[in-house]
Amino acid sequence: FKYKLGLITPESNLRAVISKHHSWHTARYPVITPTPKQALLTGLHPHHFSLMTSIDHFGFLEDGTFKQRYLLSDKYWQQPGGPILFYTGNEGDITWFCNNTGFMWEIAEELGAMLVFAEHRYYGESLPFGQDSYSDSKHLNYLTSEQALADFAVLIQNLKGTLPGAQHSPVIAVGGSYGGMLSAWFRMKYPHVVVGALASSAPIWQFPGMVPCGDFYKTVTQDFAKSGINCDANIRKSWKAVNNVSSSASGLQWLSEEFSLCAPLKNKNDVLTFKSWLQETWVNLAMVDYPYEANFLQPLPRWPIQVVCKYLSFDSTVSDYQLLQGVAQAAKVYYNYTGSSPCLNTSQTATSSLGYLGWFYQACTEMVMPMCTDGVQDMFEPEEWNFQAFSDECKAMFGIRPRADWAGTVYGGKEISSHSNIIFSNGGLDPWSSGGVTSNISHSLVSIMIPDGAHHLDLRYSNDLDPPSVRAARALEVKYFQEWIKKAKKTHRAAPTG
Amino acid sequence: FKYKLGLITPESNLRAVISKHHSWHTARYPVITPTPKQALLTGLHPHHFSLMTSIDHFGFLEDGTFKQRYLLSDKYWQQPGGPILFYTGNEGDITWFCNNTGFMWEIAEELGAMLVFAEHRYYGESLPFGQDSYSDSKHLNYLTSEQALADFAVLIQNLKGTLPGAQHSPVIAVGGSYGGMLSAWFRMKYPHVVVGALASSAPIWQFPGMVPCGDFYKTVTQDFAKSGINCDANIRKSWKAVNNVSSSASGLQWLSEEFSLCAPLKNKNDVLTFKSWLQETWVNLAMVDYPYEANFLQPLPRWPIQVVCKYLSFDSTVSDYQLLQGVAQAAKVYYNYTGSSPCLNTSQTATSSLGYLGWFYQACTEMVMPMCTDGVQDMFEPEEWNFQAFSDECKAMFGIRPRADWAGTVYGGKEISSHSNIIFSNGGLDPWSSGGVTSNISHSLVSIMIPDGAHHLDLRYSNDLDPPSVRAARALEVKYFQEWIKKAKKTHRAAPTG
Repeated sequence: FKYKLGLITPESNLRAVISKHHSWHTARYPVITPTPKQALLTGLHPHHFSLMTSIDHFGFLEDGTFKQRYLLSDKYWQQPGGPILFYTGNEGDITWFCNNTGFMWEIAEELGAMLVFAEHRYYGESLPFGQDSYSDSKHLNYLTSEQALADFAVLIQNLKGTLPGAQHSPVIAVGGSYGGMLSAWFRMKYPHVVVGALASSAPIWQFPGMVPCGDFYKTVTQDFAKSGINCDANIRKSWKAVNNVSSSASGLQWLSEEFSLCAPLKNKNDVLTFKSWLQETWVNLAMVDYPYEANFLQPLPRWPIQVVCKYLSFDSTVSDYQLLQGVAQAAKVYYNYTGSSPCLNTSQTATSSLGYLGWFYQACTEMVMPMCTDGVQDMFEPEEWNFQAFSDECKAMFGIRPRADWAGTVYGGKEISSHSNIIFSNGGLDPWSSGGVTSNISHSLVSIMIPDGAHHLDLRYSNDLDPPSVRAARALEVKYFQEWIKKAKKTHRAAPTG
Repeated sequence: FKYKLGLITPESNLRAVISKHHSWHTARYPVITPTPKQALLTGLHPHHFSLMTSIDHFGFLEDGTFKQRYLLSDKYWQQPGGPILFYTGNEGDITWFCNNTGFMWEIAEELGAMLVFAEHRYYGESLPFGQDSYSDSKHLNYLTSEQALADFAVLIQNLKGTLPGAQHSPVIAVGGSYGGMLSAWFRMKYPHVVVGALASSAPIWQFPGMVPCGDFYKTVTQDFAKSGINCDANIRKSWKAVNNVSSSASGLQWLSEEFSLCAPLKNKNDVLTFKSWLQETWVNLAMVDYPYEANFLQPLPRWPIQVVCKYLSFDSTVSDYQLLQGVAQAAKVYYNYTGSSPCLNTSQTATSSLGYLGWFYQACTEMVMPMCTDGVQDMFEPEEWNFQAFSDECKAMFGIRPRADWAGTVYGGKEISSHSNIIFSNGGLDPWSSGGVTSNISHSLVSIMIPDGAHHLDLRYSNDLDPPSVRAARALEVKYFQEWIKKAKKTHRAAPTG
């Protein structure tokens, strides 16, 4: 991993690293456009609560506590003992995940389940040191997945101890993306707290030595290859076209105008940022290539990559300028589908929100996820994974270095077969499936593949345009939930002191 | 739990608390007298090694490392892929545990196993901050069971990565007492690192709300009740006799002389210390009530409680002075069996070693183990469990407070049925069996009871005087080990990338 962008401010460095490695985690606070389905569910508005929990579960010197937020809806909960679906919040405001996990809302009645959405520490309103939480690495020291899992365990123990009728409620962890990793790890580490977990689009193997670093971008490339003639080939060609065109001042100006950039490109660094922004755009499209009009990262049409590829079907005779005109049209599908953007901003996804900074801290500590490109099996400029450079950058930014092997040591890497009751669902279109569990490990560690699904499609509200594969996936997930609940109740009846 | 001793120095407080609650952890560095069996095994001297490991596995601000010591013997190891028996070191110098775990030495050849004894951080030579490790609660902050388990995981991953032939070696955790708790928890939390665990005399349920606080001392009492006529009744009567006799200056002098005390009793505080020391003596005897002459905490005769009870078989007509003469003779069985002690020291067990202080820190943080007496079902003066007083004392000593519920939250308390491959062995004579797992939880979470066994008798060298129950226990343990090893090798063959 080279720092080809050569940018100097921390925020820019952030952008450089994350645009390359963590595209799924950018831009995480879009306004949610209510769908008709959501409107129907407005009666389910969750209540907001918080629990005072330890800042440091694993040490006793820091004895402070903080308010961890959680959302709770008991509208369909069957007391006593009805199940609890517990969303293991990921790197962002929990209300956003709550709104984007329609699956839980839709199955609550059938299962008689309470819904709880727990916010991850250091995100949203759950800030251990308030506004100082991100002030330095001393205050950031308690931002780890282990602490987050302990928060979840403490919260559930508290709910069971204080909510009448919840004492014997079986709890099922649900999460998507990093939240899905957390739900899987939660079941692995706290099987006495949750009877099972749905880990949707959870790349628990996107760590050093577990999967090839190039698979992520290969999947992105395949999405484009199958969405239009010559689509991936033309994107592969576009990088050199950008280099060619941008070599002159007039070319820079043409590019800036063609892409309606808010800030015109002025120099080589701007061009590097521009290419990185484009690459991130294609990655984001792969993640949200949903079968219906949606607004996850951006308002987008149905099957957005197909729409994008309509502008990229040139044959080999195309000129650099023609090609880039097409790329510009394609980019505008992503950034201006509604037609309301007067210009495109190449730093648009580089929000400097706490959530963004928080994830970068996590990537610089535990969440070391190697990525690379070769330009052959993928459509991007070749770039190797360079852990040392990454580590140096983390050291410069936070004064700390990542521990490349720790996630594997603590969470088991590929040797997780002794665990049980985890569903790993993955979308075949989702680049993060490359780091996911995509085949069964045992009869109770199961993989559900959704070939025409993008990033955790199964967790979203159902839609008339949903492909059969995601309908089947959701039905199977509910079936597993019901089995776990049934077994837990049986166990409880057999041992009523539990 | 009342601080009836009213002592004021930290060391005395330590003594007060630990004599009441943690008798098993006192006096942990006795000189080991080699038995003939040990002499036969001198060819197995382990090699001493150390690994640089993270001071803080769960945070990245503290990026220091320290030398963790481990002992290794590969004399009988069958390369490649032979199993590794891994002792999860507890609160003391690892060489002591190495010497006192003859079971591992005796089965190494049969299993073709490598032996590793890993030292617990903050004990022996494995001091994260060298001589400063115990200087204040800041330096003590990384003394937790979670950090210790992470050390073990990192060490095993390192051995597998660096020792030729060890890559696919199945690892079995073995431990006794707190080390047994660690071996059980190690399998629960890191099942990808160890295929199974033998948790000998491991009171994993001696935590708030899991078992009655009085069971520990009830077991002690039962040991005395069945070892001689009137034995428990006379000890029960002895406390009042001490109070009566010690109420005069001449009585204090008489007591001091009768017990050959090194420091004569002078006041009420001394008498409280004296009674606490006596109580601890009876507890220690219950722990080491072995069927042969041994030197675990002290050099002792075969079935020492029977020997002690010979001096305590008075009928109800006995006078206070007669009774206490008998008690003095009994105490001398424990403290002067070899006849080499010129006087008895009521602070003998209150060593101020690091190991002692370390365990007290652990008791003041995670290892909250309620104990109580009622004087009816046990032979001691009634004393309730008082968490608040305990917590206040911890606050005064270390500036930190224990978290009563944390051990249950993180390790699952009584709800551990989803785990697998753990043997819980317990001795019926061992007071710590009251907090242990003494019946099967599932087909792979099994209890092995040794009715006439004291504290982790099964881990000791075999002896001609061993009762059949402990021979059977050891044979069964080896059988489970072989099953786990066989299954692990099969799994490895089926998936050679593991």
